[in-house]
Formats: sequence, structure tokens, C-alpha cells
Amino acid sequence: MQKPSIPKGTRDFSPIVLSKRKYILSQIEKIYQSFGFMPLETPTMENLSTLTGKYGEEGDQLLFKVLNNGDFIKDIDLNNVDSKKLTYQISEKGLRYDLTVPLARYVVMNQHLISFPFKRYQMQPVWRADRPQKNRYREFWQCDADVLGTPSVMCEADFINIYQQVFKSLNITDYVVKINHRKLLEAAIDSINASSFFTKITIIIDKLDKIGKEGVSKELIAIGLNDNQITELFNSLIEKPLNTESLTDIEQHFKGNQKAEIAIDELRKILRYANNNEINIQLDLSLARGLDYYTGCIFEVVPTSIKMGSISGGGRYDNLTGMFGLSGISGVGISFGIDRIYDLMEELNLFDEVKQNFTDIIFCAMDESSFEYCLPLATELRAQNLKIEVYPQVTKLKKSLDYANNKQIKWAVIVGENELKEGKVMLKNLETGDQNLILKSDIIKHLN
Amino acid sequence: MQKPSIPKGTRDFSPIVLSKRKYILSQIEKIYQSFGFMPLETPTMENLSTLTGKYGEEGDQLLFKVLNNGDFIKDIDLNNVDSKKLTYQISEKGLRYDLTVPLARYVVMNQHLISFPFKRYQMQPVWRADRPQKNRYREFWQCDADVLGTPSVMCEADFINIYQQVFKSLNITDYVVKINHRKLLEAAIDSINASSFFTKITIIIDKLDKIGKEGVSKELIAIGLNDNQITELFNSLIEKPLNTESLTDIEQHFKGNQKAEIAIDELRKILRYANNNEINIQLDLSLARGLDYYTGCIFEVVPTSIKMGSISGGGRYDNLTGMFGLSGISGVGISFGIDRIYDLMEELNLFDEVKQNFTDIIFCAMDESSFEYCLPLATELRAQNLKIEVYPQVTKLKKSLDYANNKQIKWAVIVGENELKEGKVMLKNLETGDQNLILKSDIIKHLN
Repeated sequence: MQKPSIPKGTRDFSPIVLSKRKYILSQIEKIYQSFGFMPLETPTMENLSTLTGKYGEEGDQLLFKVLNNGDFIKDIDLNNVDSKKLTYQISEKGLRYDLTVPLARYVVMNQHLISFPFKRYQMQPVWRADRPQKNRYREFWQCDADVLGTPSVMCEADFINIYQQVFKSLNITDYVVKINHRKLLEAAIDSINASSFFTKITIIIDKLDKIGKEGVSKELIAIGLNDNQITELFNSLIEKPLNTESLTDIEQHFKGNQKAEIAIDELRKILRYANNNEINIQLDLSLARGLDYYTGCIFEVVPTSIKMGSISGGGRYDNLTGMFGLSGISGVGISFGIDRIYDLMEELNLFDEVKQNFTDIIFCAMDESSFEYCLPLATELRAQNLKIEVYPQVTKLKKSLDYANNKQIKWAVIVGENELKEGKVMLKNLETGDQNLILKSDIIKHLN
Repeated sequence: MQKPSIPKGTRDFSPIVLSKRKYILSQIEKIYQSFGFMPLETPTMENLSTLTGKYGEEGDQLLFKVLNNGDFIKDIDLNNVDSKKLTYQISEKGLRYDLTVPLARYVVMNQHLISFPFKRYQMQPVWRADRPQKNRYREFWQCDADVLGTPSVMCEADFINIYQQVFKSLNITDYVVKINHRKLLEAAIDSINASSFFTKITIIIDKLDKIGKEGVSKELIAIGLNDNQITELFNSLIEKPLNTESLTDIEQHFKGNQKAEIAIDELRKILRYANNNEINIQLDLSLARGLDYYTGCIFEVVPTSIKMGSISGGGRYDNLTGMFGLSGISGVGISFGIDRIYDLMEELNLFDEVKQNFTDIIFCAMDESSFEYCLPLATELRAQNLKIEVYPQVTKLKKSLDYANNKQIKWAVIVGENELKEGKVMLKNLETGDQNLILKSDIIKHLN
């Protein structure tokens, strides 16, 4: 018989890993809720007509497509087909690729039921047929929150406060929230008279972290920029803590540029509204992610104590639902990268303090009749919010205690003939090895 | 532009529905955990080699198959193919059909890391290409718990207690736990000398609820049973509350039959171990579900105040992991049907008392400068575990209060020029309409 396996790029989440993941998700969920965000879940499968064309040509290829059921090649001419053409003849559904397109689809379908601004969060897996590699999976989770239907930058300020609260709750202290504004990038590129190259230039600038100034210069020359333009562009890629002074400096730098004025005005408001001095916000004009869709602020969160990519990103987009025919809805959203946050917390040993035990007390019955003595006790203790299990078999104590140690259970209650006779139990601390014969009614007292 | 839609048989879960579902799931999860069950999650996609052949021929057809990526028809001879043959040439992965086969696959792959008895719960969606109809979906959730690696019927007793606690926590009072044992069915069928017809007979008996005694008789005649056999079989299909008396009666009925003796011994133990008089358990020998795999006890939970199918089921199976080459592991498990429990709770208005509000207090700023007054207040109140949102725009009060009413928010804090000057806020109860001008530091005091 062939050994069973799972598809490349997918994972089983075993109990210990999963409870840590659930801990991260629950902290994020709690904080999203505390800002008035409501949960949404959309189907795993979407119609391909919903998904295709939304993620560029590469995205279309990375979609997992689901084969139609039944006699799917009936009526299909198999002469001269290629895989691409055949795909859309035998497949009508695909797996969710992100949480943004389903959100847009949901809002358009339910626009008359939704009261705007619509604040929703969504934490579900997505699938991409990327080539699997270290830390890149074909099934992974996204944790998004978006506000749709208001241009107010109060929302951007809320997201900054959400960042502060989420990372505080996870004990992550060393990170920076990078912020930029599309209109500042436009101003910078306008000022070197290269606005027709906007997309190309921003894609190159975005690589600054990876390929450095020299690499970026080379690529800018390759698309036709001259030395003066490049020098001036680098002068514009200001990176400073976001505060009133840095905003005044930037205002000076882009003096008179209307786009820059709009951006600076928004950033001033965000700074004032967020009013949060417990967070390190860096204004970084070289941040140039997601400019296919972001039209206002852009966010990115990067850990500073460990070299690692971003652990969250987001921004404002003006026309998310336009792809489904509903225009005029401005939105802003962020997304947490759970896999990276998990890795970061592992590396920083931040899970140590998270209570991970699955069971507080294990009951070990030394003979059949002790079972009946243990079981009502177990029920009573569960009513006190304790997690209790009764080892299901009469066995050598070593065996049940080995099981308990594997499960990192701290307390064992051992019951045999003697305990039963005296109405007592043997309470053993499995961490220290200490044990005490106590009245069965005194268990809780002795746990503290 | 075509109106967007979702695939047949799938659902969006809107905030209100989803928070009720999350409530059900969280109650079940809490109780599973209180019995020492640990969480497991497996990938959405499994290899087709893992899935096919595990659910019968019909199951194989109901699997959603995922198209291979890339040039999937390269090297495939398209002459004389039919859909069935082609399927396995162009598809290697399928969507999870239940949580049981992935559990078996996981246990076999990780057998050396697991300490048995392995108690895991798993709450994830599954997919079946059934014809969609009312209350039958192509994507639906299962909530399983299983104990693997022990024959002890302590586990069955635990599950009975789990039933009692889960339904109590959900305020569901009118239900019956039906219990049967495969060996009692075998004894009944042995005693009419029809053991070679075991599978056929149990499939027919299982329809008793639907087609009645007459219908069952007809079908039994059709497979060759005579009137005497049928009469005697009906005499054996005892339905009584499970207690020591009914077990003695059944013992009498099957006097001397060894299979019945084993079953009765197990049922006696379960009754003694569960020791739970807050639950209605019915011994029902006509319960004949899942006999393809159940080898011991069989459970089914049915609501009694409303006509509806079972809301949970389960049983013991002796050889779950045998399908992947690991034999000798006995297990027992149950599964809750979330969709049915949801419908039941809706019908019984049991969600009324569940706190469903997404936001406790909405702040309404009447002018720009009031925003900055509201925001630190909102942060303070969030630290008190309140869910707070600040309406993101300065707008007519009616508009923000309409929004609040739609979201069923109880309290509004309204701030304008006057409140700002006096360090006060207007606190409005949106349910009663009462409002009071109070000091901003007194908000919490006034909520109670």
C-alpha cells in the first residue's frame, strides 16, 4: 500500500501548532471586533467568471480550477484544443485566491442590504498554485479588515491603532509601520517629468530594499531616465518618522505640487486622529506596493529585530467594486500575514507565555471501580472551567503518566482502592513530582 | 456587465448569520476542549489517491476534483477518452469530502509522533457535489471529535456527557440521544437465521422512520425473508429508555447469544460511566446508520420538539486507519451538524439571548475638531473590553444614528462644540431614546 501524503504546498496543522495559530487569530479577531468590524465568510469556490481577469495574467494561471462534475467532456470538441482553451470548457469554478475580490463580489450582490460604511473582517484560507518553496504555501490564511463606503481617513487612523493593539497583544514590540501615499509618489515622478512612466518607475523603486540604489539606478536608466532625473527622484524618496516636522519638510520639498498637498493634508489628519505615540510610524516614499489598486495611503509593517518580509500590508483603493459594475465606493483595508507572524513569534519565543496546555488535570483510575469514583469528580471540575480528562483505561500508572507528560498536563489525580475507601485522591504535580493525599473535595484548593 | 453570483449550493455567511454560527462552533469547541480534545486542521485539497475508493462509487462521483495546473493535457491521448477516464489523467487533487478520511491519513502519516489515545477535534468545511436542494449544500461544515487507540467505552460515556453539555450550553432541551450497538443488530439478524443478509436488512431497517413497518415488511419480503422471520425481527427492534431494566429485558430477549452479551456488557458500562440523569437516552435497535464502518455503539441525536433529521451522529469503528495500512487502532467519534443545529435554534428563537451586537457604543462627532476629542475616549473604552466605533465622517446625526440602528448598536456618544467646551458628552440610549449630558469620565458609570 502506498504511503499516504498531502499535496505539495499544503499543511496539516497539528494540535500544538494549531493552537498557537488560533491564538494569533483570536487576538486579531478580538481587536477587529473592538473597532466595530463584523465577520464575513465567503465560499471556498467562486465562479471563474468572478475570479479571472482580476489578478493579471499570472494570477489567472495561479488559480486552482475545479473540474465540472458529471460528463464534463460531452459536447466538447477535443480536436485542436490546448490546455488553456480546454480549461474554461471543463471548469466553471475556482478556489478563492484572496479575500478582496470575494468582498467586492459580496458587496455588489448585497449592496441594498448593507449599511455603509461597511466594516468587515474576514479570516479564511486562500489558494495559489505558486511553486512551493520555504515559507511559501499553496494554501495559506489571510486576515483582512476593510472599511467600504467612506473616504474618511479616520479609517486609516483606526488601522494604525489596530496595528498598535494587535502587536501589543501578541507581545511583538520591534516593528515599524511604513506609510506612503500614492499622490506623493505621483508628485515625485511628476517633478522629474516622467509621469508617463509611473507604473514602471514604481515597480523599480519598490525593489530598493532588495537591489539597492545602484540596482534601481541601472533599471531606471534602462527605461530611459537620465542622471539628473534619477538624482532628483532619489532626493524625493524621503524616509523619516511620521510627525509634524517631517510633514513640513516634505511640504517644502514638493512646494506647490497639488497632489503632494492633498497627500500631506491626509497624512496630517491621520497623524492627528491616530494620536498614538506607542507606535513607530515611518513615512517612506520608497514604499511602492500594490499601486495597481491603491489610490491613497499605503501601509506596510516590517519587524525590526529579525530580517523578514512584511507581516502586514494595506492601503486605500477608490474603486474596488468597480470590477463588478458598482462604482463610487472608496475603501481602505489591511491584511495580516499569519504565517510570518507565527514564524516571528516562534523565533522570538513569544509563545512561551501563551497557555498551551490542552488538559489541566488527568484522572488515572487504578481499577475499574475507581472509574465511577473519578467520573463525577471530573464533571464537577469541568463546571469550574477546568479541562479534565479521564485516562480511558486501567493501566500501569507509568503509561498514563507518560501520556500526560506528552500532552504537557500539569496535574494528575490518581485513584485506587485506598483513595476510594477514604474519600480521597492522590494529587500529583507532574512538573515537580510532588504528590499529596487529599480529600476529593479539596482538589481545587490544592491547585493554587 | 454580468451580475456576479456564487456557485450553486454554496453560501456567503453575512455578519449576523456568521456570528450565530461562530457562537455554536465556539460552544462546541469549548466543551470538546474541556474533555481534553485537541484541535487538528487538514488541507482543503487532498490527493485523489487519498480520497477515492473511501466513500463508495457514488462518493467518488461526488468528489470535487481540482484540475492540474500548467499544460495538463500535454502527453494525454484525447482519442477515445471518456470523462471518467480523463478525470484521473488531468486531476490529482480533490476537495475534502469529510473529516474522517483526512484524520485516518493524518494518524497514519504521524503515527510515531502521536501519543495514543489520540483525542482530536476538527471543525472545517467539506465539499460534496450533491444536487443542491433546501438545506443541502455543496459546501458545509462538520464538527468532529474522535478518540483513537483505545477500545474503552469510557469514551462513549464521555461523548454522552459531551452531548448533554453542548446542548445545555446552547439551551436546546428537547432532544433524544438514540443509541444502538452493531452486535445487537447482528444478534437480532442471527436469531432469524439471516446473517448473510446483514447489510441488506440493516439498510431496510434504517428506513423504518421514513417508510413505516409496512414499507419495511414489503422490502424484507422482496429480499426473501418469510413472515415468521419478519415478525420475529420486528420483535427484536426494541425501543426503550436506556437503563438497567431495559438492558435486563434485552438480555432476556437475546438470552444466550454471545454477541448480544458483549453489546449489553458495553452498554451497561456506558450507562454506569456516563452517570448522567440530565439526558434522555433511548436504546433503539432500529437505529442502523453507518454500518459500513461502525463496529460497536452507534449514536444519533434527534430533536423532539420539531420534526427534523438528526443533529449529531457517531459511533465506534474498529479499523479506521486500516485503509492506509495501519491496523489495530480502535476509535470512536461523533459529529455535530451545524446547519441543522442553526436551523433548530432559529426556529426555537434560541439566539434571542445570545449577545449579537457588533458594537457597544458609536461615537458621533458633529464637527472636525470633535473627532480628536472622541478618539482617545474610544481608545480608553476599548481598554475596558467595550466594542467602540467612531462614525468616520462628520454628518447629519440622523445618518449616523440610522447606521447605528442598522447595526443594532445600543449606545451613542454624541459630541459637538458645546460638549467639547464643557468636557462632557451626550450619551444616548438608542433603544429607549433617553439621552443625558454627562462628564466624559462618567460614560462607563452610565452604561450600567
